[in-house]
Amino acid sequence: MKRALGTCYYPEHWPRELWAKDAQRMVKAGLTWVRIGEFAWKRVEPRPEMFDWEWLDEAIDVLGRAGLSVVLGTPTATPPRWMLDRHPDMLAVDAEGRQRGFGSRRHYCFSHDGYLDECRRIVTLFADRYGRSPHVAAWQTDNEYGCHDTVISYSSAASKAFRRWLRERYGTIESLNYAWGNVFWSMEYDSFDQIDLPILTVTEPNPAHSLAFRRFSSEQVARFNRAQVEIIRARSDAPISHNYMGRETAFDHFEVGRDLDIVTWDSYPLGFLEDRAGVTVATQRRYSRQGDPDFQAFHHDLYRSAGRGRWWVMEQQPGPVNWAPHNPAPLPGMVRLWTWEAFAHGAEAVCYFRWRQLPFAQEQLHSGLQRADLVDAPAMAEAEQVARELADAPDVAEAQAPVALIFDYDASWAWEIQPHGAELSYFDLVLDHYRALRRAGLSVDILPPTGDFDGYRMILAPGLMHMSDELKARLMACGAEVLIGPRAAARNEDFAILRPLPPAISGLDVLVSRVESLRPELTRSVSGGGSIWGYSEDLEGAAEVVLATTEGAPVAMRTGSVTYMGGWGDEELLDRLVSDLAERVGQGTRRLPEGVRVRETGTERFWFNHTDQPVNTEAGPIPPAGVLREPLG
Amino acid sequence: MKRALGTCYYPEHWPRELWAKDAQRMVKAGLTWVRIGEFAWKRVEPRPEMFDWEWLDEAIDVLGRAGLSVVLGTPTATPPRWMLDRHPDMLAVDAEGRQRGFGSRRHYCFSHDGYLDECRRIVTLFADRYGRSPHVAAWQTDNEYGCHDTVISYSSAASKAFRRWLRERYGTIESLNYAWGNVFWSMEYDSFDQIDLPILTVTEPNPAHSLAFRRFSSEQVARFNRAQVEIIRARSDAPISHNYMGRETAFDHFEVGRDLDIVTWDSYPLGFLEDRAGVTVATQRRYSRQGDPDFQAFHHDLYRSAGRGRWWVMEQQPGPVNWAPHNPAPLPGMVRLWTWEAFAHGAEAVCYFRWRQLPFAQEQLHSGLQRADLVDAPAMAEAEQVARELADAPDVAEAQAPVALIFDYDASWAWEIQPHGAELSYFDLVLDHYRALRRAGLSVDILPPTGDFDGYRMILAPGLMHMSDELKARLMACGAEVLIGPRAAARNEDFAILRPLPPAISGLDVLVSRVESLRPELTRSVSGGGSIWGYSEDLEGAAEVVLATTEGAPVAMRTGSVTYMGGWGDEELLDRLVSDLAERVGQGTRRLPEGVRVRETGTERFWFNHTDQPVNTEAGPIPPAGVLREPLG
Amino acid sequence: MKRALGTCYYPEHWPRELWAKDAQRMVKAGLTWVRIGEFAWKRVEPRPEMFDWEWLDEAIDVLGRAGLSVVLGTPTATPPRWMLDRHPDMLAVDAEGRQRGFGSRRHYCFSHDGYLDECRRIVTLFADRYGRSPHVAAWQTDNEYGCHDTVISYSSAASKAFRRWLRERYGTIESLNYAWGNVFWSMEYDSFDQIDLPILTVTEPNPAHSLAFRRFSSEQVARFNRAQVEIIRARSDAPISHNYMGRETAFDHFEVGRDLDIVTWDSYPLGFLEDRAGVTVATQRRYSRQGDPDFQAFHHDLYRSAGRGRWWVMEQQPGPVNWAPHNPAPLPGMVRLWTWEAFAHGAEAVCYFRWRQLPFAQEQLHSGLQRADLVDAPAMAEAEQVARELADAPDVAEAQAPVALIFDYDASWAWEIQPHGAELSYFDLVLDHYRALRRAGLSVDILPPTGDFDGYRMILAPGLMHMSDELKARLMACGAEVLIGPRAAARNEDFAILRPLPPAISGLDVLVSRVESLRPELTRSVSGGGSIWGYSEDLEGAAEVVLATTEGAPVAMRTGSVTYMGGWGDEELLDRLVSDLAERVGQGTRRLPEGVRVRETGTERFWFNHTDQPVNTEAGPIPPAGVLREPLG
Ligand SMILES: [Zn+2]
Ligand SMILES: [Zn+2]
Ligand SMILES: [Zn+2]
Repeated sequence: MKRALGTCYYPEHWPRELWAKDAQRMVKAGLTWVRIGEFAWKRVEPRPEMFDWEWLDEAIDVLGRAGLSVVLGTPTATPPRWMLDRHPDMLAVDAEGRQRGFGSRRHYCFSHDGYLDECRRIVTLFADRYGRSPHVAAWQTDNEYGCHDTVISYSSAASKAFRRWLRERYGTIESLNYAWGNVFWSMEYDSFDQIDLPILTVTEPNPAHSLAFRRFSSEQVARFNRAQVEIIRARSDAPISHNYMGRETAFDHFEVGRDLDIVTWDSYPLGFLEDRAGVTVATQRRYSRQGDPDFQAFHHDLYRSAGRGRWWVMEQQPGPVNWAPHNPAPLPGMVRLWTWEAFAHGAEAVCYFRWRQLPFAQEQLHSGLQRADLVDAPAMAEAEQVARELADAPDVAEAQAPVALIFDYDASWAWEIQPHGAELSYFDLVLDHYRALRRAGLSVDILPPTGDFDGYRMILAPGLMHMSDELKARLMACGAEVLIGPRAAARNEDFAILRPLPPAISGLDVLVSRVESLRPELTRSVSGGGSIWGYSEDLEGAAEVVLATTEGAPVAMRTGSVTYMGGWGDEELLDRLVSDLAERVGQGTRRLPEGVRVRETGTERFWFNHTDQPVNTEAGPIPPAGVLREPLG
Repeated sequence: MKRALGTCYYPEHWPRELWAKDAQRMVKAGLTWVRIGEFAWKRVEPRPEMFDWEWLDEAIDVLGRAGLSVVLGTPTATPPRWMLDRHPDMLAVDAEGRQRGFGSRRHYCFSHDGYLDECRRIVTLFADRYGRSPHVAAWQTDNEYGCHDTVISYSSAASKAFRRWLRERYGTIESLNYAWGNVFWSMEYDSFDQIDLPILTVTEPNPAHSLAFRRFSSEQVARFNRAQVEIIRARSDAPISHNYMGRETAFDHFEVGRDLDIVTWDSYPLGFLEDRAGVTVATQRRYSRQGDPDFQAFHHDLYRSAGRGRWWVMEQQPGPVNWAPHNPAPLPGMVRLWTWEAFAHGAEAVCYFRWRQLPFAQEQLHSGLQRADLVDAPAMAEAEQVARELADAPDVAEAQAPVALIFDYDASWAWEIQPHGAELSYFDLVLDHYRALRRAGLSVDILPPTGDFDGYRMILAPGLMHMSDELKARLMACGAEVLIGPRAAARNEDFAILRPLPPAISGLDVLVSRVESLRPELTRSVSGGGSIWGYSEDLEGAAEVVLATTEGAPVAMRTGSVTYMGGWGDEELLDRLVSDLAERVGQGTRRLPEGVRVRETGTERFWFNHTDQPVNTEAGPIPPAGVLREPLG
Repeated sequence: MKRALGTCYYPEHWPRELWAKDAQRMVKAGLTWVRIGEFAWKRVEPRPEMFDWEWLDEAIDVLGRAGLSVVLGTPTATPPRWMLDRHPDMLAVDAEGRQRGFGSRRHYCFSHDGYLDECRRIVTLFADRYGRSPHVAAWQTDNEYGCHDTVISYSSAASKAFRRWLRERYGTIESLNYAWGNVFWSMEYDSFDQIDLPILTVTEPNPAHSLAFRRFSSEQVARFNRAQVEIIRARSDAPISHNYMGRETAFDHFEVGRDLDIVTWDSYPLGFLEDRAGVTVATQRRYSRQGDPDFQAFHHDLYRSAGRGRWWVMEQQPGPVNWAPHNPAPLPGMVRLWTWEAFAHGAEAVCYFRWRQLPFAQEQLHSGLQRADLVDAPAMAEAEQVARELADAPDVAEAQAPVALIFDYDASWAWEIQPHGAELSYFDLVLDHYRALRRAGLSVDILPPTGDFDGYRMILAPGLMHMSDELKARLMACGAEVLIGPRAAARNEDFAILRPLPPAISGLDVLVSRVESLRPELTRSVSGGGSIWGYSEDLEGAAEVVLATTEGAPVAMRTGSVTYMGGWGDEELLDRLVSDLAERVGQGTRRLPEGVRVRETGTERFWFNHTDQPVNTEAGPIPPAGVLREPLG
């Protein structure tokens, strides 16, 4: 498939006389997509039910006539101030019990039905007006669900909706009490109306209570998004997308993705390195101007899966951002590298955010392809270079990866609720496995637990705290080399420990008899190299011991092609495990220089040098921030 | 006296058919005590004033008929959800002014009279029903007063009760204003009704105001407990206990203890090392699987005193817990060591918490003597070993220690209100002295300031910010070598500085002319070795200078047998002081290997190796986690 | 002018029989000023509108007849408890939305008109009664505006006043929306009544919104102070002062100062080193007993400017304080050094806080010239020494410094709102430049942006985020060597980026094409020595490059006598810049030993040794904490 470039543009921010000039410059740069509209509610509906469509009509027309395809965003992430007069209780309430205020964005509670109706109303108007526009070639619902910690709200709207949700899920209060083990501390309820949100309890709430609330909160996002999708789909043939954020785990992106045609995400490598990649300060220093070598790729693969193959980068960092603890400029070449990396992972489009740096308001220090004075910023040349390269080069052909890695939002919530050790997070556990696969030069597909396992040689599924019987059976039967654990199937659906003890997988004689968490520096050495840190399990059973501590305690056990890993492996141990599994299936691996990463498509092998030094690879030398395309046989 | 073992059991958590089997297993393991009931309010009173006693009758009967003695807990730590409908304002309010929510435990304000009446009602019913039961051999009131920071509440119930309390204590508002020095910042009140709780003030409240509130809050706990004790005592001959926590200083455990027959406490050595022992990270690493070598012993000695000799460990950690930042498994042998250590310090019983790991709710990762799948956990064998050893070995005979160490909850509040230096805490100061005594191989009794000093050779009373005239006189006259300071008698009863300046002790010509706090690394070297750190005083007076800085400033001064210490000594200096005092009274000391501790009873010397390496001692080699009983001539 | 000493005294805290004795001791010590009354509202007006003047009449009389001049404070920083019954909503609300409580001080919101009227009432009574008193030789309004973070309040009084303020400033809601760029996230308002205070927004509020609120909050302080000044000035000829605090930037001290006759400030060198000097731990250790060598001098110079030449130290630390994380005693000699340093910088008077350590309430551990037992504290002798030296020595003659350094409170707010890098603060940036000037032995005048530039050889104006056209023109035309940047003129008055890009100064062909913030350790080396850290700009333009990175990127550019600095220089780089500028104007500099500082007056050069070791200087040896007065030619 042909790949494309684009940008995010806000006609309402700029004088009307600039629009045509901007559109021409975009086209000249080789961009074909332009996203607009997602924060413009107030300009379209200045007063309740009084509209001004004229400017948006013209903006779409000007852009479209210049040859650009428009992604039109619904403006529901930024309800105008007058909305609060109609729905004073629509604001979210935070974990301290404080109602959030107006004056930025995302100031709504997903459970507020009154606001949801307003969104249905405005989206209907957008879709009615532009659903058949020749220029509107795609839609975006809202903007960055979950950004700024906005999924979870403790409002009274959420409280009421949660009670309804519980009643539907559990039927009777007795079954809820039983499922949650509320007998524990006399926490049994007499009716659903007694159940509060899990906030400000004296010590931690029942983890079953917390998990239910996390699931509910995630479903509220899906419900909110679905309401928009249904309206647009009835009125337009253009594909519908939403732009996810990085390391946003408060809602299930697979579930929301099922309602979308295209999943997009907003990729800010330097900002993420500073505020969420979860790396050491040493790594933050080394990659300060390049970003983490795996963090973006992980999201590319994750969201490709959430989009069932169709995905974009909707916002690509083009220079310093405004919101991280430190905001350096990228190393020259990195904007090009990030763009090609997205294509190598199958992106259909990469859009730079934003077209032009804005001289006012919250993001005034967020760079763009142009500076605030209308001059091209350094990223423009790199975007233009990619546009030329796209024109000259063969299309990127996606191919199934040899390895599948499972990511489960439900498991992430469970680990967040009960990490057991202060440093432990499911996201980091999965990312550690992803890093090990990438260090071995392997391409990876990321799947939900419900994913199709056909055709994979290796399947890694670390940390799945709950596993359905069906999932267990599918993993046992899939034929791939499978790695599960630690904490595999450690809880039932309602956060209770199973009896027989976990993982309780038929055909795998392994039992976790005890779990412990360790101070980070108190590792358990493994015979042959590497260590367990942080989380460690005592294993019993008749399965073969394939890894053991230097004192002889089992660390990993295996029956047939399924390996259970009883702890959190460090880099060396995960590298050993990946090599071992790959060898068992005859999958070749390579040892890559630090900071070099490889991604194979159907026809090419892409090499990326994330370091600021030239490197030599088997495919040849690569300059700093360099990209090398190696045709495959 | 014969020592005994027991466990904590929750029949309401398990199918009825398991009860008899569990009881038999307990008996077979050598346990004789079983605590039940303390979280079962909802199961006993499912709806307000509607009762279901049948299951509890049977549980007690099953356990008792198996040969076990029951400790019956009153269920007041976990009021059911329906209680909030009757008393919506019974919830505590935290220091941020937020009302806490339902969904965990201890969700009540000690000052709420409506809830106290409910407690009186349910305790009366418990005592009426089981007060003469042949199986109920002891009682426990509530559970872990103060746990999760629950002593202090800023509710309106507390506010009203505090005003009443102040009126009773001060009589007139004029005397309160005078005592507190409210003239300082125009803080003088016109009536008691104007006095708010010391919360959310612009800068710190008057320390006299804070101290009064701390005393009031402590007394509310005593009042709450006393109400239960009086009801039970009128209806049962069985001894009444309450289970204290570690490093819980928000209420006066001596005062509450005076109403109890037996003081118990909940000993979690590995959890406490992680979250409250106040040690360095290096110590946390070294003792990660063993716990701090002195922290448990300190509480044994403290609570033995609070129980006037009668004390138990009601909850003994048997494996990993669920609540600390890191939750490792104990080194094999430590469960036995902890149990014997308690007996060496005079415990009548040690009960393991819990019988069986629970598969649901908040404490699902708290290990027990059995795993959640009904199989014995590693601790079971160690408990059984102790049971056998108890049967074979002579009884433990308590004896007065040669050294008394004073602990004063009122002083702890005063230091918390006014630490003067960011790192300084009274609890740590006393614990530092305790550690020095233990390093010298000395057994210690811990006394309240009102304790009986007869028979002690050495009395250490560091940090007593307020000392009554009577206490001063008793210390001067007791004949023991006495160590006081720093901050001895630094304030009067109402947190004012005395004139003449402290310590103002007749017969001891020492005056603290100035106090300062120091950055931790800015120590003052003392001639002959050791240093002062953190807190330092300028001393004047005609008393003999027994320690001085290398520049010649007095650090410790002495008249007769009373030594005033004008600073916080480091390990070396405290060791010097202890040796010096011991030598003056002819008390032998020993230099123990690191991590080895000794405790003498009337007939034996117990040696404990808290390290994970074998050690050689004068009494012979001791393996890691080993216990050695040396008969005394 | 003759310099004088004084102290702060609270007759209401001490028995009446002590007053005369205290006054005599003050006079004997050589003190001539005594400040009283600023916390005494409750004693003067015990019940609303019922007064007791008698004690204050006598106190003033006793002090005055002993020969002391009284500074009379208005008592508005500590409204009595009964005030809250009259104005329950006068309390400030913090950034968490919590109303603050009674029980300390400064518990009022500057925007509350009811409380302001009460202040007008009591100040009128004070001024009527004592305005013509022969003993009241000066006034102080309130006490330490802004202390304990009290400038900013989110109360409903503040909200209403802010809306009024906005309406006055912007006229129409359309101009506000345009000026703030509210179109950005649909934040446009329909009326001023819709504008809330910038609190608890989901992500950061519009920086223009925040900056307006900071300006408003500052003006509320000026309004509050002006109300008192107008009343006093109409009734008394004595000069009116207010005592500022250290590093208090929440209100514009120049603006408040314009209404005062004398600016005073409260100088606590050891406390400030601990809690606000912004230095490394290594510096905190080295100067633990001496205080930062530049921090006090900086405030002397800043507040001399705010007082248009007339300034005092109203509260001089005389020993350990009570409020810092650590509270050591000063090195002997430092109280004298601090006093002389103030005089060297032009202070008219230095008053020690407090006369005597108070034995009760919040500041009981704050030392005084006397101990709580009425004995002289160590500082008394140092004060007496200064008094003798003042009598013997020539008067201090102020002189214009060769260098002016600009400090702009508005810039400080802008940097606080948008630091861009986590470690960056405007105050530290200016202080870093001040330190460099001081290391070079230069005396400095600090000016507001509106200051008179006549007669200065060098003008340093780092970090002025907004610069008026007039300021730009004045700097270009003043003839001095001028240093501006980084971030010079980076925003317009309403926090928007200018077009053409900053600094947009006619005659200086420099343009900042991109800004970035860097992790502290990721510095950019500059050719010839030194580095940029933290904040870095890309510079373009035709101006001469005078500093460049080792890779050749411009760091500083110059046209004529104006140099633009495109980053935050480290110590070495700032030293180079200062030397270079000084050389260009023929201004001599010196390399001073570490911790030695120099200040030149019209007739003398003062040398101060802030270290605890003797040093040799060109003017001769100076002992630790020593002062050397070198007569000038
Ligand atoms: Zn974004
Ligand atoms: Zn417990
Ligand atoms: Zn002050």
